[in-house]
Amino acid sequence: MINFSLFGAGRIGTLHAANIAASHPRARLAYVYDLDPTAAAVIARKYGATVAPSVDAALGDAAVDAVLIASPTNTHVQLITASARAGKAVLCEKPIDLDIELVERCRKDIAGTGVAIQIGFNRRFDRSHRAVRDSDVGAIELLIITSRDPGPPPHSYIKVSGGIFRDMTIHDFDLARFILRDDPIEEVFATGSALADPALAKLGDVDTAMVVMRAASGALVHINNSRRAVYGYDQRVELFGAKGMVQSENLRPSSVRRYDCHVTDAKDPLLNFFIERYQQSYLDELHEFIDAVAGKRRPVVGFDDGRCALLLANAALESMRSGQSVRVNLASRAG
Amino acid sequence: MINFSLFGAGRIGTLHAANIAASHPRARLAYVYDLDPTAAAVIARKYGATVAPSVDAALGDAAVDAVLIASPTNTHVQLITASARAGKAVLCEKPIDLDIELVERCRKDIAGTGVAIQIGFNRRFDRSHRAVRDSDVGAIELLIITSRDPGPPPHSYIKVSGGIFRDMTIHDFDLARFILRDDPIEEVFATGSALADPALAKLGDVDTAMVVMRAASGALVHINNSRRAVYGYDQRVELFGAKGMVQSENLRPSSVRRYDCHVTDAKDPLLNFFIERYQQSYLDELHEFIDAVAGKRRPVVGFDDGRCALLLANAALESMRSGQSVRVNLASRAG
Amino acid sequence: MINFSLFGAGRIGTLHAANIAASHPRARLAYVYDLDPTAAAVIARKYGATVAPSVDAALGDAAVDAVLIASPTNTHVQLITASARAGKAVLCEKPIDLDIELVERCRKDIAGTGVAIQIGFNRRFDRSHRAVRDSDVGAIELLIITSRDPGPPPHSYIKVSGGIFRDMTIHDFDLARFILRDDPIEEVFATGSALADPALAKLGDVDTAMVVMRAASGALVHINNSRRAVYGYDQRVELFGAKGMVQSENLRPSSVRRYDCHVTDAKDPLLNFFIERYQQSYLDELHEFIDAVAGKRRPVVGFDDGRCALLLANAALESMRSGQSVRVNLASRAG
Amino acid sequence: MINFSLFGAGRIGTLHAANIAASHPRARLAYVYDLDPTAAAVIARKYGATVAPSVDAALGDAAVDAVLIASPTNTHVQLITASARAGKAVLCEKPIDLDIELVERCRKDIAGTGVAIQIGFNRRFDRSHRAVRDSDVGAIELLIITSRDPGPPPHSYIKVSGGIFRDMTIHDFDLARFILRDDPIEEVFATGSALADPALAKLGDVDTAMVVMRAASGALVHINNSRRAVYGYDQRVELFGAKGMVQSENLRPSSVRRYDCHVTDAKDPLLNFFIERYQQSYLDELHEFIDAVAGKRRPVVGFDDGRCALLLANAALESMRSGQSVRVNLASRAG
Repeated sequence: MINFSLFGAGRIGTLHAANIAASHPRARLAYVYDLDPTAAAVIARKYGATVAPSVDAALGDAAVDAVLIASPTNTHVQLITASARAGKAVLCEKPIDLDIELVERCRKDIAGTGVAIQIGFNRRFDRSHRAVRDSDVGAIELLIITSRDPGPPPHSYIKVSGGIFRDMTIHDFDLARFILRDDPIEEVFATGSALADPALAKLGDVDTAMVVMRAASGALVHINNSRRAVYGYDQRVELFGAKGMVQSENLRPSSVRRYDCHVTDAKDPLLNFFIERYQQSYLDELHEFIDAVAGKRRPVVGFDDGRCALLLANAALESMRSGQSVRVNLASRAG
Repeated sequence: MINFSLFGAGRIGTLHAANIAASHPRARLAYVYDLDPTAAAVIARKYGATVAPSVDAALGDAAVDAVLIASPTNTHVQLITASARAGKAVLCEKPIDLDIELVERCRKDIAGTGVAIQIGFNRRFDRSHRAVRDSDVGAIELLIITSRDPGPPPHSYIKVSGGIFRDMTIHDFDLARFILRDDPIEEVFATGSALADPALAKLGDVDTAMVVMRAASGALVHINNSRRAVYGYDQRVELFGAKGMVQSENLRPSSVRRYDCHVTDAKDPLLNFFIERYQQSYLDELHEFIDAVAGKRRPVVGFDDGRCALLLANAALESMRSGQSVRVNLASRAG
Repeated sequence: MINFSLFGAGRIGTLHAANIAASHPRARLAYVYDLDPTAAAVIARKYGATVAPSVDAALGDAAVDAVLIASPTNTHVQLITASARAGKAVLCEKPIDLDIELVERCRKDIAGTGVAIQIGFNRRFDRSHRAVRDSDVGAIELLIITSRDPGPPPHSYIKVSGGIFRDMTIHDFDLARFILRDDPIEEVFATGSALADPALAKLGDVDTAMVVMRAASGALVHINNSRRAVYGYDQRVELFGAKGMVQSENLRPSSVRRYDCHVTDAKDPLLNFFIERYQQSYLDELHEFIDAVAGKRRPVVGFDDGRCALLLANAALESMRSGQSVRVNLASRAG
Repeated sequence: MINFSLFGAGRIGTLHAANIAASHPRARLAYVYDLDPTAAAVIARKYGATVAPSVDAALGDAAVDAVLIASPTNTHVQLITASARAGKAVLCEKPIDLDIELVERCRKDIAGTGVAIQIGFNRRFDRSHRAVRDSDVGAIELLIITSRDPGPPPHSYIKVSGGIFRDMTIHDFDLARFILRDDPIEEVFATGSALADPALAKLGDVDTAMVVMRAASGALVHINNSRRAVYGYDQRVELFGAKGMVQSENLRPSSVRRYDCHVTDAKDPLLNFFIERYQQSYLDELHEFIDAVAGKRRPVVGFDDGRCALLLANAALESMRSGQSVRVNLASRAG
């Protein structure tokens, strides 16, 4: 049995709590900590956990094996470091941090602890995207990731989000690295516009973006993003190679097709957003983490994956600002 | 060069005239005959043909190799017989006649002429339906034909149509025989309702029908028809066997897919009706006929196919009236 | 909290036990009874339930609110009757029984008990099929149900199954009634062949079947079945009416599409069988039952639905044997 | 009646000759000129045209209304100029030339002639791509063009092709401009690799490419190309805007879907290449030209469209070489 401390009792923390408590036979939610103890109490009561009065209390119990970090981004590095030093395995929501300096420092700080660290790139566990990665298309030549949210977040969120590349595209950067396997991305070009909400421009951000990247092999990667797709959460991957192509298509709540005077073979709008679309992948991500902790092995998506995705996001931001493509070196410290 | 006399200058005759004149390099339209000489003249002028003053005139020219019969159904038998006796190859629109007695007599009357007779079951030449037939699904077990018109014809047409089975389903009966190859249909059950236009009931006809048939091998066939599909001309075939399934899907004017707040992946309405849907198959049917005539061989769909389709239609009508399944013997005279 | 006694610890009983215990917050598994106490113990241990030494013990505890009957078909009537007399709500797997006489007697025996009885027609809860039913296609004219299993059961199962119509098609009969709402089916024609496994003929059964039914409104229904579809569990519904058409399509484990030299846009084989395909509908069926019990109301699918489905299956069997269509009266005792 | 002189009797010239002669009622092929008089004679004989002994002869007949230029690219400018000066309307295959200086000079040379000039961007006439353009998706935000050939041309062709951007992507540049309407592209980024045929690198060319462009409105455009798609000629357009999305999907020779142990809903490989895929659009392009000539109006795709597409191709080439995005000004002379 793996005992968890959960940091963060918001939307995504609530989802993880339910997955820990209800869906995995080897996991138990032991402590919940949140700056708002009322929010923590709601989760704790539901799943028979204890509200921790402090981070230290949630880490101090020797019976706790692992922590799940679902608190605001700017607390991630501190909680990862404290948890790792306390010998707890860590599953931390993405991104590690918006500041690559802090990420690099955290990397050094936890270097000797030997604990398992998994970053919450849940899309790696989506069965359709994973089937794309596991398909044999021959040598990879083109990878195209379409990733569009159903609607933009409020400006208050945008202001602390780190911008579209570090907040939203970061999932796509990680997915690209996951699919390219050991073929490192070396060059990034990005551009963007504030079209869905022109007021974003005043915040220095965009809501519509395109990225082109080049891997060492010469394989080319394209990502396109929008913060507002009126037909739902659009999540597609297309992988093209010497022997063929494979695509992961969108998911919908049912399989119905409609025919009338105006349309034929019409499907319903897409699953609304990440909670619905990636419901199973959040669960599979947790299973992977628990299996890694129980099996004393490293999770398949680790701290360095979080760092590399941030490096790509930073390069995209730099490229958008400069209008030039930016070279990256994911092997060592880069920027 | 194959010289044609065309009987009938209506909608389908006009289509055949264009195909003869414009699209086949080895064919020429020599004569057009119609009870209405004005209609015949329109076609004749367009394609450089002669308006024939009589059937005999259209058959009497030794330079004429073939006739295309696109006149009203009740003239078919007489024209087939006269043409065959004149030594002309015949491509006749379906059905041969609504009266099986007349068909059987015609069969005897032309038995010794040795001319090529092809019945206009154009769907046999549709590339999608043909791909279904040519697919290897192992031993055939289930065949499902969906055939729905976009809208009902006027009552004046219904009254002389011979009823839904002899007018509309007859195409599906022939298609079933085409796909089953040498596995003869032995039993027919049919039922129907007047739902799109309840007034049809007073004419003794229906506009909505289902048929189940059994072949000698035990393979089962289902046909469903409607005279009114608001989304367009619905033409599908599904063939299921020991090794898999193959379907021919509907065709549309373009390949666009639409996404908005209400629908995703929505296609346009189907091609409107047979002229549009089977445009290529009318052409391929004509090519088959011309190749057969030029090559001195029998066309792949002949007089007996027209007779067998009528026998199945008659059995369906009898079944609908009696509520019992009806046995048919397609090898010899049956009813 | 609703306390359950579970009768039957086989494959489907195990599935229901997991749904009761793990997935519904208001339900608890109290007792498990099976002729094989070892099988009962496996489930009881996993979910903290008690192995009941007898049916009476499982029904005798006043704390038990409901029973779930997942035992062999020939025990259903006895268990429904005993449970109802004990005042327990009943969720019973289909069919009620293979013998309509026993079903009618059971109906009378439980008439006065007032307990909620729900029959396990889980497909009614499938979100795609339900979306078909809830769609407005105008007046219903054609309903086409395709239902094919991935592979045939062993002969030992076939022998006690009651034949394809009472064992397999019974789900489709119920689904047809569900979709037709208050338009009663009045006439049934059926035919079948033993094609996947010709040895079935010696057992008096078939593995390939087609049914046509007529409702009071004149709406026509077609069902086609096969016991062996090599591409997976094929479950589709097509509903056609005056205003359009709606279809529920098959489900697959992922959304990938493959392109190579031979195929394009190719999807993976279908979900394997009912456990996978109807996973969510088994859960939703249980939720419906629990809500009905908690809310003191009748479930939306009740005893009479089980009886009517059996009447249709019997009519189909009679039709297949006689070659004639059979009239049914679902309002009262019929045959 | 519009009389044509055809320059060039190769593959594409033969296609245009057939379209002129056989499919358009108002057009006639008068002369054919080719450096190889034998090739010219084949076409001339087939359609009753005259083999012109020289360009001047083909232009000198006052009865000639229009010329169709399907000769090698390096003859286009000279033939356009001569034809325009002779007062003949011109339909010229793309590109106008590979050298922007020659294109600009030609532009000046023909400025005063007033003749209709149409450039052969046939994809503008494809009914699916055109339906994309004509769809209302609200303000355009993302445009994604996928354009992949089934297999690479020989090195001999590559050497004189002008490189992938001026030879292949030029169609996509024009299609992007067509869909964006009056929103001019202002910035181009491109990159590429020689992956299908690494030997291309020695010729200074690539066979796999990605482009990102920015329009004045902020709308973003992505193009991806490959010279080798093993599943056929892949031609797709996706247009995303404030109100939804519309896509044009690939076309196949038939509508069949296949199901077996390995795949479900599998379609056939795509139509092989441009001759098959754009058969109808070549015809519609010709109709547009003839209608423009007959109606004394400018064709909808003109000389300046050819010039702008070349400017974008040049910018892409410059961007690929420099690694920087390149600004373009399509209104006046730019580079």
